[in-house]
Amino acid sequence: MLHTITSLTVRDVRFPTSLEQHGSDAMHTDPDYSVAYVVLDTDCGLKGFGLTFTVGKGTEIVVCAVQAVAALVVGKSLQEIVSDFRGFYRLLTSDGQLRWLGPEKGVIQLAVAAVLNAVWDLWARSEGKPLWKLLVDMDPKQLVSCIDFRYITDALTEEEAVEILVKAQEGKQQREDHMLEEGYPAYTTSCAWLGYSDQLLKQMIDANQRWDVAEAVSWVTSLAEFRPLWIEEPTSPDDILGHAAISKALAPLGIGVATGEQCHNRVMFKQFLQASALQFVQIDSCRLGSVNENLAVLLMAHKFQVPVCPHAGGVGLCELVQHLILFDYVCVSRSLSNRMCEYVDHLHEHFSSPVVIKDAHYMPPKDPGYSCEMLESSVQSHQYPDGDVWTRINK
Amino acid sequence: MLHTITSLTVRDVRFPTSLEQHGSDAMHTDPDYSVAYVVLDTDCGLKGFGLTFTVGKGTEIVVCAVQAVAALVVGKSLQEIVSDFRGFYRLLTSDGQLRWLGPEKGVIQLAVAAVLNAVWDLWARSEGKPLWKLLVDMDPKQLVSCIDFRYITDALTEEEAVEILVKAQEGKQQREDHMLEEGYPAYTTSCAWLGYSDQLLKQMIDANQRWDVAEAVSWVTSLAEFRPLWIEEPTSPDDILGHAAISKALAPLGIGVATGEQCHNRVMFKQFLQASALQFVQIDSCRLGSVNENLAVLLMAHKFQVPVCPHAGGVGLCELVQHLILFDYVCVSRSLSNRMCEYVDHLHEHFSSPVVIKDAHYMPPKDPGYSCEMLESSVQSHQYPDGDVWTRINK
Repeated sequence: MLHTITSLTVRDVRFPTSLEQHGSDAMHTDPDYSVAYVVLDTDCGLKGFGLTFTVGKGTEIVVCAVQAVAALVVGKSLQEIVSDFRGFYRLLTSDGQLRWLGPEKGVIQLAVAAVLNAVWDLWARSEGKPLWKLLVDMDPKQLVSCIDFRYITDALTEEEAVEILVKAQEGKQQREDHMLEEGYPAYTTSCAWLGYSDQLLKQMIDANQRWDVAEAVSWVTSLAEFRPLWIEEPTSPDDILGHAAISKALAPLGIGVATGEQCHNRVMFKQFLQASALQFVQIDSCRLGSVNENLAVLLMAHKFQVPVCPHAGGVGLCELVQHLILFDYVCVSRSLSNRMCEYVDHLHEHFSSPVVIKDAHYMPPKDPGYSCEMLESSVQSHQYPDGDVWTRINK
Repeated sequence: MLHTITSLTVRDVRFPTSLEQHGSDAMHTDPDYSVAYVVLDTDCGLKGFGLTFTVGKGTEIVVCAVQAVAALVVGKSLQEIVSDFRGFYRLLTSDGQLRWLGPEKGVIQLAVAAVLNAVWDLWARSEGKPLWKLLVDMDPKQLVSCIDFRYITDALTEEEAVEILVKAQEGKQQREDHMLEEGYPAYTTSCAWLGYSDQLLKQMIDANQRWDVAEAVSWVTSLAEFRPLWIEEPTSPDDILGHAAISKALAPLGIGVATGEQCHNRVMFKQFLQASALQFVQIDSCRLGSVNENLAVLLMAHKFQVPVCPHAGGVGLCELVQHLILFDYVCVSRSLSNRMCEYVDHLHEHFSSPVVIKDAHYMPPKDPGYSCEMLESSVQSHQYPDGDVWTRINK
């Protein structure tokens, strides 16, 4: 724990998925799944690995932002960080000059996510535990001390958060055993990707922010006979009141609204919950400010009794978010009702501890850390623009 | 109009304002007022100048983002752009890969603002008019064709926008003459900057996002005896419902809520208006997607009958936003009631057409363009990190 972070390196790693239209949707027609990939070095030799997900062009902008944030991290010891993780979170998100670029949104928030994912990975490795287990074993007060409650106390106070976690201590071991045995339910969306032949899935519709409010209501109403469970991202990810109007219109049809993969911070999720604007919370491990901010959202979702169904897919998103949803089940929601975690069978071979799926369930990771260490050979060959994969394509 | 854009250059220009605490506030304690400064070259020799405002560190990230957006601009002719400006706006904001970094928020939106500010400058110069006059003389249908109505049709349709503009044709000439003679009312906030000795101004309080919702209500209530006109940025700029709650609590005291300088797009402003979450709309010329998106906000504000009081100060913000508020008065709001435009007397000497203030009024600019061309000598000496000013400081 006394390890001092001596350097932070970040690389632009891209997979040429657009060549086969993997991951294409209505708004992102030609994504090259990519990451800004962070490695923290410490003076004791332990490393921390983190990433944030992007879809090609612009990854270099996130890399540039990570470099700006790095100055706030290098030289700190892990002990110093985790003994006041709330303060450290705020140091990164509220720097007097950098916060102008957000605050807590867009490129700068993606960069904070990449860096803090690496810090959490380092912490879990230093404890010799997978991240979900680090969280599960943590004292409620310490967990809550990682969360920045600024701007959310009208929805959830620190005391309420502790209370939720304390209450969930009961039966924790049984739920952990349950997960270790059976895993967390997964669902896949890749058959609905645009470049593929099937465009409509019976149980799920993903609109990818295509519609205005009235259009969304009209389109989904016309699809009601298929009895979809939810409509995903029906309109702008910023439109809380729009989602609320759509939710209200679709409720009589038994169709919910799911959103969150582009919801950029806890303040936005707070409002989605306050306004009954979603019926499924799709947290993302790389859009929000890492574990710290995801903890806030999991706790708020529980208070408002809305199930969390994480966004995954991409590259590395499954590896990361499985830890959060395992923690959610064991220590917060205590329920699997109406809950599942997205899964896409792509690009896992580039990770040193890839997800393990068994009978359509995520099996809890066992290796220490946050599962986002990539194979160095993969990183080197996919580095943009100089890796082998890209020099061959651009020849 | 057939000029083709042959190149786009962008530079990181910073003023060491933190040395004297100019511009410091509760959340931005040590700003170095800065810009990402864009110059468009064309094949006929005409140039376009644009910028977006930042507060120091991280300007290099915006520069990197501008470079990514540049690929979508270079090679286009001005004619091609302005004959489908809505389409061009969407090309920049909805690029299938870059939009993941926003969408329409944070660094990537600041970059789009810088680039489009330069395009509007180029257009105004090619017509030999200051930007406000280009807008004032434009046909309502053409004006509206510059706006992307995606995600705002539940608040304002294209037809309603045209109707507002057509209705305001009456008396337009008189209002233009009035502005040419007397100018637009300005107010200053610099005496409230933290580093200065006065911390409280009788008529205005700027909280700079300091409070949670309950704190804001309690603090402002305790200041009610000073009869402030508004409380500015009481909480997170993303918290629409929080601002609505604060507005509701303060209404009986006759205190309004003002916000917008960190409101990142038309979808957010739409909701602030729908939720009665603000009583003064503070548009910003560099946070929103340039003139295109500001037009949408001006028209929505008019429909909801909420006055627009632009955010300015910074560096270049006064130069830019004066054009928008002049247009608002002449062609949209037709009113000066409860309206004024922020003004700060800083850094104007670095511009080739600095603002002209007369008797606390902004006098309409006369030079062609959008007033954000900087003196080349200023740009060179303040370029970060290699300009004279910075090499001297960092010696």
